[in-house]
Amino acid sequence: MNATRPANERFYSIIPAGGIGSRLWPLSRAEAPKFLHDLTGSGNSLLRDTWDRLAPISGEQRIMVVTGRAHRAAVEKDLPELADPNVVLESEPKDSSAAIGLAAAILMKREPDVIIGSFAADHVIKDNRSFVRAVREAIAAADAGYIATIGIEPDEPAIGFGYIHCGGEIEIDRAPSAMLVESFVEKPKLATAQQYIASGDYLWNAGMFIARADVLLEQLGQAQPALLAGLLELADAWDTPARGAVVDRVWPELTKIAIDYTVAEPAAAAGRLAVIPGHFSWDDVGDFASIAKLHAGGRKADLAILGGNRRILADDATGVVISQSKRLIALIGVENIVVVDTEDALLVTTTAHAQRVKSVVDALKLGGSSDVL
Amino acid sequence: MNATRPANERFYSIIPAGGIGSRLWPLSRAEAPKFLHDLTGSGNSLLRDTWDRLAPISGEQRIMVVTGRAHRAAVEKDLPELADPNVVLESEPKDSSAAIGLAAAILMKREPDVIIGSFAADHVIKDNRSFVRAVREAIAAADAGYIATIGIEPDEPAIGFGYIHCGGEIEIDRAPSAMLVESFVEKPKLATAQQYIASGDYLWNAGMFIARADVLLEQLGQAQPALLAGLLELADAWDTPARGAVVDRVWPELTKIAIDYTVAEPAAAAGRLAVIPGHFSWDDVGDFASIAKLHAGGRKADLAILGGNRRILADDATGVVISQSKRLIALIGVENIVVVDTEDALLVTTTAHAQRVKSVVDALKLGGSSDVL
Repeated sequence: MNATRPANERFYSIIPAGGIGSRLWPLSRAEAPKFLHDLTGSGNSLLRDTWDRLAPISGEQRIMVVTGRAHRAAVEKDLPELADPNVVLESEPKDSSAAIGLAAAILMKREPDVIIGSFAADHVIKDNRSFVRAVREAIAAADAGYIATIGIEPDEPAIGFGYIHCGGEIEIDRAPSAMLVESFVEKPKLATAQQYIASGDYLWNAGMFIARADVLLEQLGQAQPALLAGLLELADAWDTPARGAVVDRVWPELTKIAIDYTVAEPAAAAGRLAVIPGHFSWDDVGDFASIAKLHAGGRKADLAILGGNRRILADDATGVVISQSKRLIALIGVENIVVVDTEDALLVTTTAHAQRVKSVVDALKLGGSSDVL
Repeated sequence: MNATRPANERFYSIIPAGGIGSRLWPLSRAEAPKFLHDLTGSGNSLLRDTWDRLAPISGEQRIMVVTGRAHRAAVEKDLPELADPNVVLESEPKDSSAAIGLAAAILMKREPDVIIGSFAADHVIKDNRSFVRAVREAIAAADAGYIATIGIEPDEPAIGFGYIHCGGEIEIDRAPSAMLVESFVEKPKLATAQQYIASGDYLWNAGMFIARADVLLEQLGQAQPALLAGLLELADAWDTPARGAVVDRVWPELTKIAIDYTVAEPAAAAGRLAVIPGHFSWDDVGDFASIAKLHAGGRKADLAILGGNRRILADDATGVVISQSKRLIALIGVENIVVVDTEDALLVTTTAHAQRVKSVVDALKLGGSSDVL
């Protein structure tokens, strides 16, 4: 390896842009997944915002996007700077171990000493400077041989996120706030979440992983040797004329498994997972309640209006309305309402029932209404 | 007058089909007023249901419809049996005294001994046999010289309707249940409505008037002599080539006033207004809460679905959804919700706020959004 390059110059961003975001139906759907939407009112898609956040860190020539074949055109339109060799297309979704692992393997083949950082395409982050500071520390921790993650300082006992249980501090040069990860915990009940917050030992798991590619893949291979072998075979062929044939043969056989199980949890158990606390506001925008909260700015009496349609008349209404149509929308006396108005489907619910949207999508699937999914 | 014809044979139905029904926006609007909609799920418009209710009483050759010029085509399509001389078109709305008064005057010109009955085009009645019985009694009362109305036996202390305060019984042949009307009272507060119900002396005012045309017009002329003169002038010219010119000159000058003030209240004060109690279920379907109630059939947990679109998925939803689109509509966890989905406008409110729809329509008018009104 060429260890003479500084860690920051060896850094490469990976954006896995997959996942429909079923809880955001009918806005998000197979043809228009969550990451392609502007859910913040910034005027940019979440993917574009992610790109803009990472470009100053790795440089725009060093961002790789992993997405489905169906989204290639939309992604390339959204990210005209995206270099062709940095587009990795999945023929079918194989979950995050395969998506991130393949990107890491391709990059390692090209640059054996590469440090990769994987960041979801559909999360919202405010305060980019704090984000950059945290990523820089994570890169330093990765350079020191750790698999690093960034845990978000919670501002409330959220029950919609997983948590990271932090252990002792670690001494790492240029990563002064690094701690060991004791364990990952699933979405808790409220009382448990409140205990987490009170203890001060827990951070939200934002699913960001920063590591040397070789370290990440070695860890993955311990849990899933066959998956690693497939990924390395794909990476060997990737920049050669054999790519197509190897993809067709190998990709369909890969095990579908989240990177949490193949890398994050085993690494934590092995004492090689470091966490950098992120002092910035973060949300995975998992449902319409998140969107409403994101836009309320702390004001409970707010109605968030998203989606381009500005012909909305609200009389004593709070919640969120997202309209892609040109119809006039009148809301009267509805609290915490969620109205999502698309060309072929309309959703009316409340922020309290936002999590149930997924079950409707499941019912539509079963009921043969895939035309609107 | 030809008093040899029995009263029932002298009877003529008048259906004033005016009024947009602003509280039912965006379903009802200038181009698609309330009476043209199927609000009962019968498959027929309210106008058509009104026609079908009256045809057995007066015969379909003896039903006159007064409507706006803009609605002529829709009305004639809905009522193919409607005879051409029985269509009275208003060049502009002039309220119920002019509409009903003109119809009465035209009919009196054609048949001096005619008994007219006026029935709104946009009310809902169940139990046609009881309706027919009440109308027959009202015709007998009219034949005896009274202005008659049909008051609805209340089944709850409604605050959305006006009430009729009944006085003593009157002896009229073939109208055994006729009583004098003591007075009309406006929509009461709940406590007052409860007293009304407890007393047993009050009926709902359904705005039905049955009278000899000459009696009705004479009463109207006492309150509004100029209006009566205009109506008689119009009636004189109606079946002649002069109609157009006289309409253009006279109609715009007519006083705009409800028949309640020119006929009903003065006749009650003069002791010449008879009321027949109607033992049938009636509703003026004044707002979306009425529609929800109409369809709930007493079951509070019901979701009424109207408007042709059957692609509606409800998970724990009550209230009413009316959709004219082909979009899939999903409702999750919304109680007493009102969703009205039209091509160019969407309303989301609750049954509790149904009366506020009119204020939104007013706001749209002021805001220059007449394209959706």
